Amino acid sequence: MPSSEFADRLAAVADATEAALARLLDHTARPGETTRPARLIDAMRYSALGGGKRLRPFLLIEAARLVSGRDDLPDGWLRAGAAIECIHCYSLIHDDLPSMDNDDIRRGKPTLHRAFDEATAILAGDGLNTLAFDLLADPETDPDPAVRADLVLTLARAAGIGGMVGGQMLDLAAEGRFAAGRATPLSEAAIRQLQGMKTGALLRAACAMGAALARADADARAALDCYARHIGLAFQVADDLLDHEGDAATVGKAVGKDQALGKGTLVSLHGADWARATLDQLTAAAAADLAPFGDAAATLVAAARFIAARKN
Amino acid sequence: MPSSEFADRLAAVADATEAALARLLDHTARPGETTRPARLIDAMRYSALGGGKRLRPFLLIEAARLVSGRDDLPDGWLRAGAAIECIHCYSLIHDDLPSMDNDDIRRGKPTLHRAFDEATAILAGDGLNTLAFDLLADPETDPDPAVRADLVLTLARAAGIGGMVGGQMLDLAAEGRFAAGRATPLSEAAIRQLQGMKTGALLRAACAMGAALARADADARAALDCYARHIGLAFQVADDLLDHEGDAATVGKAVGKDQALGKGTLVSLHGADWARATLDQLTAAAAADLAPFGDAAATLVAAARFIAARKN
Repeated sequence: MPSSEFADRLAAVADATEAALARLLDHTARPGETTRPARLIDAMRYSALGGGKRLRPFLLIEAARLVSGRDDLPDGWLRAGAAIECIHCYSLIHDDLPSMDNDDIRRGKPTLHRAFDEATAILAGDGLNTLAFDLLADPETDPDPAVRADLVLTLARAAGIGGMVGGQMLDLAAEGRFAAGRATPLSEAAIRQLQGMKTGALLRAACAMGAALARADADARAALDCYARHIGLAFQVADDLLDHEGDAATVGKAVGKDQALGKGTLVSLHGADWARATLDQLTAAAAADLAPFGDAAATLVAAARFIAARKN
Repeated sequence: MPSSEFADRLAAVADATEAALARLLDHTARPGETTRPARLIDAMRYSALGGGKRLRPFLLIEAARLVSGRDDLPDGWLRAGAAIECIHCYSLIHDDLPSMDNDDIRRGKPTLHRAFDEATAILAGDGLNTLAFDLLADPETDPDPAVRADLVLTLARAAGIGGMVGGQMLDLAAEGRFAAGRATPLSEAAIRQLQGMKTGALLRAACAMGAALARADADARAALDCYARHIGLAFQVADDLLDHEGDAATVGKAVGKDQALGKGTLVSLHGADWARATLDQLTAAAAADLAPFGDAAATLVAAARFIAARKN
């Protein structure tokens, strides 16, 4: 698939996701809700709208398309994509807080606690975390309650203490925030575990949720999970390479932080040349994982290349 | 029901909930999890174990018992009770943070961010929030996925932006934390809305989840929801009365804060005598709601009296 065609498909899903989030994150209380405080909704919209590649919703939707053969965009898929984006977005808000990574810019604008305040940022993150599961459990996402329960369990386990939240905890520990008070370089195995939890788990969940929405059989689920593992690792190697070589203006957030904090990354262990060769290998492996799907997998194969080559 | 018999029943559920939480919040990774970082689990256990009346699990379990006629304690009910307790506990951890209510003691011991650190407290809260939905969506909680999806939706909507999280946002606004910079006394309607969201919604969810687990019909659900609304209001009036008249040693947290912050409460608007009369009326109304169940409702009727009369 030409990269311009891929870019068009990515942008179309990003636009649809943006519209879905704007609709779901409005000021109108839903049944079972009392009222939605305006400041809280404004803060959530500040962080959740107006930016982002929407990579996780894209993977979810393209996985569902691949398995189902459909090329339209059912509302339920967009809702599930919005749910995973809520989790991603809340994690960025909380990770940026002064007591966490203490970041001032995100996607090229002030972080939420700078634009609003810390208490609002904590609550906006909490609200997005909870809203994700609200969206998934609602019959509007899928008529089959077994699929909805599966979506909730998949996302909760990927996002929770044994996944994304646990990965952030390991990341802070690697900075020497507790006990020793200084950074201890991690082993390669520890880096891979940390990264697999902090970012890999949610990318895998995106593909698994798309597979669940499309009623994938066990073979298709397994192939998509292998693909997701490979692109998850590529995502992180590319991220480390950007932290190593990028500049803040292009990346849209502070760079060089991992190195300054003394945390080991795979790039600091093995070098930039190794990283570029690894990205090529991971892209090829991701394509091979989806070979059974034939040409229908062209978009997800292009997504793997995009993830490996991304500049922000 | 004699108050000693009620106390025994409450203690038995609290003990079973404590054991369930200890088992669910252990250090062993579950399928789909990579690893559970020790410090994160230790922090979650510090806050979630070793205290609390476990009122929400108690209401959930007693509602399920009332509807089903069962008197045993199925593991699925305990899991659902643990899930709602995870939400309650995460809200206390985040509400105690320096940028929120800045509290140093909770249940008579240092708050989590004092005992550990702020970043760990934020992540422990996030982990408990997510774990609640993990627990509910797991087939071990109920064999019927429709019940599991219902449990998730009920809890997420009660705990989220239109419920508990939204209520905390309104509470901070009432303290004048944003814009004006000083407290503006709330109208009675605004106080009732805030309290209904901040604490009432989760008490209602507890009863609704118990009803769902027991396959309650529409009449039973409606009766339990009226009961839950009455005890929710009683809970808050009793809380305001404790803030008005209690002492920190008995209550186990700082008292007089609401008054010092200039926030209006129903007790500051109407006085302590009104509050005591209102508590009597609410207790009677809660009992009337459950009259269709006859003597089987004795435990929940006693729970209403307990909530109105509690000293901590």
